Amino acid sequence: MAELDEARLDLTLKAVDDGLDGSLDRLFSFLRIASISTDPAHQAACRSAAEWVAGALEDLGFTAVVHPTAGHPVVVARTDTGAPRRVLFYGHYDVQPVDPLDLWETPPFEPRLGETPDGRRTIVARGACDDKGQVLTFLEALRAYRATLGRLPVDVTVLLEGEEECGSPNLPGFLAAHAGELAADVALVCDTGMWDPRTPSITTSLRGILHTELTIEGADRDLHSGLFGGAARNPIHVLAQILGEAHDASGRVTLPGFYDDVLELPEEVRTRWAGLGLTAEAFLKPVGLSVSSGESDRMVIEQIQSRPTLEVNGIFGGYTGAGTKTIIPARATAKISFRLVADQDPAKLRAGFEAFVAERVPADCRAVFHWGEGARAFLVPPESPNLTRAAAALEREWGVAPVTIGSGGSIPVVGQFKDRLGVDTLLIGFALDDDRVHSPNEKYDLTSFHKGTRSWVRILDVLA
Amino acid sequence: MAELDEARLDLTLKAVDDGLDGSLDRLFSFLRIASISTDPAHQAACRSAAEWVAGALEDLGFTAVVHPTAGHPVVVARTDTGAPRRVLFYGHYDVQPVDPLDLWETPPFEPRLGETPDGRRTIVARGACDDKGQVLTFLEALRAYRATLGRLPVDVTVLLEGEEECGSPNLPGFLAAHAGELAADVALVCDTGMWDPRTPSITTSLRGILHTELTIEGADRDLHSGLFGGAARNPIHVLAQILGEAHDASGRVTLPGFYDDVLELPEEVRTRWAGLGLTAEAFLKPVGLSVSSGESDRMVIEQIQSRPTLEVNGIFGGYTGAGTKTIIPARATAKISFRLVADQDPAKLRAGFEAFVAERVPADCRAVFHWGEGARAFLVPPESPNLTRAAAALEREWGVAPVTIGSGGSIPVVGQFKDRLGVDTLLIGFALDDDRVHSPNEKYDLTSFHKGTRSWVRILDVLA
Repeated sequence: MAELDEARLDLTLKAVDDGLDGSLDRLFSFLRIASISTDPAHQAACRSAAEWVAGALEDLGFTAVVHPTAGHPVVVARTDTGAPRRVLFYGHYDVQPVDPLDLWETPPFEPRLGETPDGRRTIVARGACDDKGQVLTFLEALRAYRATLGRLPVDVTVLLEGEEECGSPNLPGFLAAHAGELAADVALVCDTGMWDPRTPSITTSLRGILHTELTIEGADRDLHSGLFGGAARNPIHVLAQILGEAHDASGRVTLPGFYDDVLELPEEVRTRWAGLGLTAEAFLKPVGLSVSSGESDRMVIEQIQSRPTLEVNGIFGGYTGAGTKTIIPARATAKISFRLVADQDPAKLRAGFEAFVAERVPADCRAVFHWGEGARAFLVPPESPNLTRAAAALEREWGVAPVTIGSGGSIPVVGQFKDRLGVDTLLIGFALDDDRVHSPNEKYDLTSFHKGTRSWVRILDVLA
Repeated sequence: MAELDEARLDLTLKAVDDGLDGSLDRLFSFLRIASISTDPAHQAACRSAAEWVAGALEDLGFTAVVHPTAGHPVVVARTDTGAPRRVLFYGHYDVQPVDPLDLWETPPFEPRLGETPDGRRTIVARGACDDKGQVLTFLEALRAYRATLGRLPVDVTVLLEGEEECGSPNLPGFLAAHAGELAADVALVCDTGMWDPRTPSITTSLRGILHTELTIEGADRDLHSGLFGGAARNPIHVLAQILGEAHDASGRVTLPGFYDDVLELPEEVRTRWAGLGLTAEAFLKPVGLSVSSGESDRMVIEQIQSRPTLEVNGIFGGYTGAGTKTIIPARATAKISFRLVADQDPAKLRAGFEAFVAERVPADCRAVFHWGEGARAFLVPPESPNLTRAAAALEREWGVAPVTIGSGGSIPVVGQFKDRLGVDTLLIGFALDDDRVHSPNEKYDLTSFHKGTRSWVRILDVLA
């Protein structure tokens, strides 16, 4: 039986190898659709991309539905063969905007093969990696199974949204409304990266996220700074003082209780991370910085992965045009995001920040908040059987054990899968650090595409 | 001799009264020219306004020249009768923009007569007060002298610029280049206000001003706040901390040495100001505030007139559009202005602020400053003979002694007259608090225009 299974697996992997040109043709077709979700001018293209993937899934024997939403459609496709296990695969068919267009060497929606300076072959286009190329590694693995076995080793539900690049505003509601239909034993997300071009990885932690926009309101109009300056409160000063006091000199966030639900690293992880020898200087040098701004008693890898942050993403108030205008503005606004780790609760952070601000707002000013929904941090327990199985499958494909890594980023859908569907997620992807995701000349290594597809063949085999 | 002079003065004042309709006609012609200096679309209108006033001055026997500059023209006109004294009159022919246009009850460049709710007759138009109406009080006084005596009691140089509403960028250079031609015994500026509709005033102090734009530069690009947040320095945080530390809890500016050259009020002035009984609550209530943000041990009138300030007029950095974008921006900028008092030196403040910022900028960030030229504070000594004479003339016209007041605002030309021409300035104007200067439905009281003109007749008489 094991030998027979092994032979079938080999056949399926060979089907991936033999079908690579066809896989590339399909990826190129998908990449030609300019599905920029944030730009209303590309609404029809987003719809086309949704229909393209729905069609591709129907080709594979899925029942596919393109669900309208208040924004771009959500595609849900499923097989129902009565297999004992079901996986839920999540990805997105939308892409980032392409500006600045003049920095692209070839048009972003005319995919081509390229080569890196060190000789790696690549697929170049907007979305080549994020997320169309990564999504197709999974779909092409399914195709190989269909071609060899005539069926899939597990039942599969595919969920593809078209608003990931603009904050997935309609996904939480969709998940709540379709929770029953989306039930599965495990969720798979292919939107993360490898450790390096030879070493696969599984992302086992993500930071959560919480957004707010804080506006300090003062006088009922902009005031002349000569006539009122010295007496009238300046909301920019109030906002600057609040934000300036939010970190202390050691880089810690000063909000009372901010670190209460932050867990210390397990000793094993701390030792392993310390062994990586990543210095702040090495980490920051590629972006023109050299000194970490983070908690001075933490390793830089902790600062970016296992420690929470308060970050001001944008600020504006008063006169921002050319030249001068001597006003005391009526209001000033900061866009703030928190990255959450471990057990930090978005609702508790929200209350804590509101209290911190309230203590610093003068009696005749007002603080107005606009909060986003927020997402907790995500952590796969190291003893998870699915994690162990997937790691073994990746090791067989790549010849080297995958590195389990944390990411400082946030993929809110992972928390929503846990909270709304009760399902755990495996984050496995084949992106590389030089893929220029969100930038001009985005690419995906041909090896990532090919061996990524083979990896999913192996992972589906072990999850079955 | 004194009786003869008195009779001539009465004749001239009567000429003002009898000629009021003609004066209004000329003001209306001037007001119809949409000389908005900040808007390039109105360049021809600014030129027309310059030519209009040059023509009006030639009508009065002046030799007038419209001098081109890098911006809008400067008009210089002069009489040369060999009179023992010469006055230099300064005003501006440009006006503020008119937006929001839909708040105007009648078109801003179609002047009309109106009435206030309490029955004062007014002239309504953009520039009715600031500064076309005020300028014409002076020119119409000259006209009355020409009509009655055939000559002026003093020689007069009139200097009218067209860039006052956009910071007078070309005036300092012009003054330097034409210092000899502009020499005079005293300068007169008609761009300030009355104490109330019945009480004239002379402005005897102005705060100076110094502008800078401060940019904090961090990474060489905007960074993903998930991947870099916790380690990469956020320029908004650096800027907020600098600005947040620039004032202490008592409202004092914390820059070392900031108050070194600030003088305490003479006891007489302090007693008089205290007697005014102006509370912060009363001063701030009309703009929706109630608590002074200024130095807690100072009266509000000190805070706005005799104490220096550091004010952030605008701030921007990172993502400022709708929704969220989780970046750590590459830079953040604040537009800052200082109001200077007493002996404060712009160059010294500049050095002090740069040092204050430098101490707070991390090693891998940069602080970039763009400084304006700066202007010292202005103070007329209370014993000035011209001040005493002008005050007596105003008292005769209005029946009540003028109040000498300070203004928290800045009129840099006054310092330039002192520094470049060696001439002291008398600031006398007839604007009222409800004139809506810079706002829709700007007006000038007909009484301000009429008795303002009569006031200049009397002032020129005593200055002769």
